[in-house]
Amino acid sequence: MSTRRFTSDDPELDRFYSDIAANDLQPLWEMRGLLTKTPSVATVPHRWSMSELVKLAAQSGDLVPIERGGDRRVLALSNPGLGGAPYISSTLWAAVQFLLPGELAPAHRHTPSALRFVLDGAGAYTVLDGDPVTMSQGDLILTPAWAFHEHHNPSSESMMWLDVLDLPIVAGLDAVFFEEGPSEEADRSQARRSASERRFGQGAGLMPATAGHGFLPEHSPLTVYRWLDTDAALTALLELTESGDASVRFKDPTRSRDVMPTLRCEMRRVLSGTTTAAERQTGSRVCAVFSGTGRVEIDDCEFDLGPGDIFVVPSWAVYRLHAHSDLDIFTTSDAPVLDALALYRDEKVEP
Amino acid sequence: MSTRRFTSDDPELDRFYSDIAANDLQPLWEMRGLLTKTPSVATVPHRWSMSELVKLAAQSGDLVPIERGGDRRVLALSNPGLGGAPYISSTLWAAVQFLLPGELAPAHRHTPSALRFVLDGAGAYTVLDGDPVTMSQGDLILTPAWAFHEHHNPSSESMMWLDVLDLPIVAGLDAVFFEEGPSEEADRSQARRSASERRFGQGAGLMPATAGHGFLPEHSPLTVYRWLDTDAALTALLELTESGDASVRFKDPTRSRDVMPTLRCEMRRVLSGTTTAAERQTGSRVCAVFSGTGRVEIDDCEFDLGPGDIFVVPSWAVYRLHAHSDLDIFTTSDAPVLDALALYRDEKVEP
Amino acid sequence: MSTRRFTSDDPELDRFYSDIAANDLQPLWEMRGLLTKTPSVATVPHRWSMSELVKLAAQSGDLVPIERGGDRRVLALSNPGLGGAPYISSTLWAAVQFLLPGELAPAHRHTPSALRFVLDGAGAYTVLDGDPVTMSQGDLILTPAWAFHEHHNPSSESMMWLDVLDLPIVAGLDAVFFEEGPSEEADRSQARRSASERRFGQGAGLMPATAGHGFLPEHSPLTVYRWLDTDAALTALLELTESGDASVRFKDPTRSRDVMPTLRCEMRRVLSGTTTAAERQTGSRVCAVFSGTGRVEIDDCEFDLGPGDIFVVPSWAVYRLHAHSDLDIFTTSDAPVLDALALYRDEKVEP
Amino acid sequence: MSTRRFTSDDPELDRFYSDIAANDLQPLWEMRGLLTKTPSVATVPHRWSMSELVKLAAQSGDLVPIERGGDRRVLALSNPGLGGAPYISSTLWAAVQFLLPGELAPAHRHTPSALRFVLDGAGAYTVLDGDPVTMSQGDLILTPAWAFHEHHNPSSESMMWLDVLDLPIVAGLDAVFFEEGPSEEADRSQARRSASERRFGQGAGLMPATAGHGFLPEHSPLTVYRWLDTDAALTALLELTESGDASVRFKDPTRSRDVMPTLRCEMRRVLSGTTTAAERQTGSRVCAVFSGTGRVEIDDCEFDLGPGDIFVVPSWAVYRLHAHSDLDIFTTSDAPVLDALALYRDEKVEP
Repeated sequence: MSTRRFTSDDPELDRFYSDIAANDLQPLWEMRGLLTKTPSVATVPHRWSMSELVKLAAQSGDLVPIERGGDRRVLALSNPGLGGAPYISSTLWAAVQFLLPGELAPAHRHTPSALRFVLDGAGAYTVLDGDPVTMSQGDLILTPAWAFHEHHNPSSESMMWLDVLDLPIVAGLDAVFFEEGPSEEADRSQARRSASERRFGQGAGLMPATAGHGFLPEHSPLTVYRWLDTDAALTALLELTESGDASVRFKDPTRSRDVMPTLRCEMRRVLSGTTTAAERQTGSRVCAVFSGTGRVEIDDCEFDLGPGDIFVVPSWAVYRLHAHSDLDIFTTSDAPVLDALALYRDEKVEP
Repeated sequence: MSTRRFTSDDPELDRFYSDIAANDLQPLWEMRGLLTKTPSVATVPHRWSMSELVKLAAQSGDLVPIERGGDRRVLALSNPGLGGAPYISSTLWAAVQFLLPGELAPAHRHTPSALRFVLDGAGAYTVLDGDPVTMSQGDLILTPAWAFHEHHNPSSESMMWLDVLDLPIVAGLDAVFFEEGPSEEADRSQARRSASERRFGQGAGLMPATAGHGFLPEHSPLTVYRWLDTDAALTALLELTESGDASVRFKDPTRSRDVMPTLRCEMRRVLSGTTTAAERQTGSRVCAVFSGTGRVEIDDCEFDLGPGDIFVVPSWAVYRLHAHSDLDIFTTSDAPVLDALALYRDEKVEP
Repeated sequence: MSTRRFTSDDPELDRFYSDIAANDLQPLWEMRGLLTKTPSVATVPHRWSMSELVKLAAQSGDLVPIERGGDRRVLALSNPGLGGAPYISSTLWAAVQFLLPGELAPAHRHTPSALRFVLDGAGAYTVLDGDPVTMSQGDLILTPAWAFHEHHNPSSESMMWLDVLDLPIVAGLDAVFFEEGPSEEADRSQARRSASERRFGQGAGLMPATAGHGFLPEHSPLTVYRWLDTDAALTALLELTESGDASVRFKDPTRSRDVMPTLRCEMRRVLSGTTTAAERQTGSRVCAVFSGTGRVEIDDCEFDLGPGDIFVVPSWAVYRLHAHSDLDIFTTSDAPVLDALALYRDEKVEP
Repeated sequence: MSTRRFTSDDPELDRFYSDIAANDLQPLWEMRGLLTKTPSVATVPHRWSMSELVKLAAQSGDLVPIERGGDRRVLALSNPGLGGAPYISSTLWAAVQFLLPGELAPAHRHTPSALRFVLDGAGAYTVLDGDPVTMSQGDLILTPAWAFHEHHNPSSESMMWLDVLDLPIVAGLDAVFFEEGPSEEADRSQARRSASERRFGQGAGLMPATAGHGFLPEHSPLTVYRWLDTDAALTALLELTESGDASVRFKDPTRSRDVMPTLRCEMRRVLSGTTTAAERQTGSRVCAVFSGTGRVEIDDCEFDLGPGDIFVVPSWAVYRLHAHSDLDIFTTSDAPVLDALALYRDEKVEP
């Protein structure tokens, strides 16, 4: 008998409960909390402070050679509400990854989708299915599902970036596949601009005339979004609004959809002195402060924010920002999953 | 400290592990099994036998009045691999529901999507957002996300059906919402044919000219598929194939998609004496034998099959059927979810 | 000089007009009527009476062997407003086609899409890319673009049907291609039901599980819609409305779209005594009375209607029906073209 | 009798032909050329030379005040094969429009879609539904269907641009609607950058997070594509190819489609010394040399090309370019129409 055995004071009913348990059955009428008025969420609001992360990063550089036991120097952000699971929320993995000068994280691929948002440093690059993509502060780099990827740091600077993966979702769907890359080292001849950018990263709406002939990938064929462009787009949007709060969404430039099937990415700028509208949405959000200072309210929690701080907004939690100086916040969420399954809801919340 | 604390024999490293745990961080390089070559699946192959279910159903009718603590007389099929969770697989809830003569399961709605496949009986009906849908053996009835639904049995016959819900998926995405229906009893004036069938259930390709003007639901507007039609469709398909194995998929007749955003439904007929090709796919499948006898192989397990038996095929498990007499098997799966997230894979497997 | 030469009383301007004409140029400022407040439509409202058509059909059967000069015994309905062009409207070809007992119209294919609506008779069949489709009164049979088609009448009855093609549109786009079929005679072994119906013509929403794997045609894979189903669908729809006016649209059952990329098909039933709402839409409509009697108003024209009568409603003309007995009217239009190009408009018109 | 009357030497048949003509019918078996093996195309290959256009433009500036009889100083390119119709091909209108310093072409809107490609000059602007868009050499400016548009030239320079409209298509579908704009003069306060560009014209894939909420237009919300970006995109594409021939397609940056439902726009660069592959496609193309010199072959015609020259490639005509210096050619076509109607074909042609 491997299922849960319910009990009852009524001996006849108790015997029945024993019989059904013996048949791997459970009585619905004894269960509580399966269907709740609003989501029952284990993930709690939390913030990781960059100053701590940087201090620990330095230590990990000394203590943990990148060869040790695995091939990424990565600290996973573990949500205090999830009972020790290495996930920042019930649906997302988030971590900070460090790459010291001269280091290389060898190639592999997996069905979970990943992204890197560069918090600090420049000069490293990621090779994506053979296409080298340089990485600099503020850039968003995609490593889509099943694309081979490896990271190099030929520079003399340390790099630190935020990794976000949809790992809990893919694992929950029993769909994790993984493969090591070819053992030979990747070509280190670093192109100035990736082929992906040359083809798909030109001006808005400018596409190779031949794009779409043949195989279309399940993700954006543009695999990097540069900070310079993001910054300019935010500036232009804020010129058109009074609210002091604007968000740019990173999209597949060839089609109307998010960058990857499971992850939505946005950069938000909240101007100094602005308090944003309180709102909530289904699905969880991982946010990284790129620059600026302020304060965030998430349900009944409040956290101070400074550059590099990372926080998580659980599903259906009320979320509001106060900017003490201009705040630039990178946000990624599982919204495309909720959208695809018709489970996405959002609403403004009156204070 | 609420996260998992890793340890090390190296005192310096151990101190570091203590520090990072204090900051709700975990070291990736110490983790094992996060990314596996193929899916690491807890769900095990299993079969529930109808004879047991029927026996227990009779007992539950005596012991459990439908008012008792909940409003559905439902036995949940609990997968032995899932540590007592009331789920048939990591992603699906499945149960047998009984409705005795004269009983009524009152109205409610929820964001998990549900379906009923009638295993035995006739004469009950489900009211879906005010539209009464009769239920008979072999019919598939949808209760889509957020549609009010209630079940009535005005007949003198007991009804038994298979319930399947995407509950583990919706709960895993922290997106369960639930609402009781209006307290007044539903209109029991039972129409011969639902409005849904009159509008959308006519011949293939025949739609109201006004369909699509205005709001389009996220699910099939046709909420019932009758056994008579399913049977005829299988007969016609089998005339066109040599393999003795044909499947009809239940689809939204107004658009190219599954009946609901999370659940794929098919009826499969395997002719007597046929052994099907061995195959596997990502995502889990719940199968109910509607008629016939045979045997199923799922990875290294084998089960005999007879009418009303229910079994589960875990993600990526090799699956093969042998029909001793013509086998009609209703199958539902989470394939639309895997499809939407670009995680669907399938393959034929050489014996 | 091959362009139009404009003139002017101003000699200098006149000389300029001569110069520009010599360079194949025309002055916009001298043109009138290029951009009109509402469509400037040459097609006029018109009705062809079945009694005349039948009389002429009989004569054509005597006078014109089907081998004579072409391979179809077809009378094209020529709109009186189009200056002798063989088109029923600026965008549609319509004709009545007769097939006498024992006759065969040999196979060919073309890029214009065609449909047949059977006005009278039964027992003939059309072979579509090798799949024989029987034809009976009230059936709609598609002959999609570039599908080989031939017509056989092995019965002892004469057949008469309405042909509608998008020929003016395809010719206007310089995209007509045509090919004779193989010279050997088609297999006359007539199946009871076409493969198309067996695969795609079962109950609404019932599709082969394998549909969509591989090549998807640009048109409905279901190539015939039977009168029995159409009639039942109209009856069911009218039960749900008070207006005495209902329309069934023929759609691709595998996807949300019209049967072919250029032609929309509907069957409309107006109950005896009903006057429909006056409305107009862009694009032209060809209508054939399948049964019943009544009267039609199209802008300032009025025509009596009886079984087999065919009429045309020009673009943007106000259209209204009065049913003296229950009126069943088959309608086809170019609406999918206007839809696809974002040029479709419709509106109710106050009397 | 308003239809064409066919005749016959056979008196009985001749009498029949008289009868059917009296009933507005025509005999298919007497018609020739309705269905041709390949498209029967009236449009002929032709080139208009910029030197002539400029000379005539100067004259028109002197002779034709912009108030005269119309409100645009436009010379329509009239294809010599079209019997004096003011169209460059059977489906497209093309013209050169001149706007002298200080001139204003007042606001109107129409269902035909239009675009402007600036051949010469800078400093004018188009106001699109209230949004002023500056115009400079090499820019592509859209004036989508039913958008109010007006043109201003506050500069001291003359402007010349190529106008292309889908007028023959929209007129052929009896769907032309037209409306004068409000009589008050538009706001001449010219913004540095249009709102359209600030919202949708940032880097590839960078969209306002709120885009797509609410009304989605039927055309690209980005209404201008700047030469600087086009040039950079061509340069980047040519770095990735060996062929010396690359084309950028202008797309709706928010969705996967052409800029407007009827018009495809591309800029092509052929490097000096390159001869392109000979190919043909259904639908007609209008091409304007932006810079460079070369030679074009279209079926059996050949034309020398220099800056500003405009030429037309008829449907299914074999087309090949030879670049004497780097050739930049702006091309627009009706390909989205042929695509939408499943009539698009193309093929490489062996020399």
